[in-house]
Amino acid sequence: MEWIIIGIAAALLTTFGFVPQILKMRKTRSVKDVSLITLFQFSAGVVLWALYGMHIGDSIIIAANIVAFITLTIAISLYFHYR
Amino acid sequence: MEWIIIGIAAALLTTFGFVPQILKMRKTRSVKDVSLITLFQFSAGVVLWALYGMHIGDSIIIAANIVAFITLTIAISLYFHYR
Repeated sequence: MEWIIIGIAAALLTTFGFVPQILKMRKTRSVKDVSLITLFQFSAGVVLWALYGMHIGDSIIIAANIVAFITLTIAISLYFHYR
Repeated sequence: MEWIIIGIAAALLTTFGFVPQILKMRKTRSVKDVSLITLFQFSAGVVLWALYGMHIGDSIIIAANIVAFITLTIAISLYFHYR
């Protein structure tokens, strides 16, 4: 049972990993030091993870990566807004 | 077979997702806009993913998250070096 909790905690921490970066962008209104390539690379990665999740029929992988993609879309939008 | 390639591409893109951020830190020698919380949150997440991978006996999950942890350790070290 504790392993399920560890798996859920791992998924939540990484799925919402860019939320603090989004909050920092909004606070400082500056993105000079943020790597846009990192944001696009993660976006491409989580799209492929979601497709892979659909292939193996794992709803957790699908959901986690769709949510991560939404946070990355917000981060990329803010990047272009504040750059 | 193509699904294996998609899975491998997904893993490589996200495992090495912070490498462009590391290169940008080294280039600009500035980390003012980078979220340290995001770096620590991903670090905690990939450690839990690696533990979860050990539990379910998946060597790909273990290896990908150990490599990701190494890149995050480098990113955090550079953050404190350049802040």
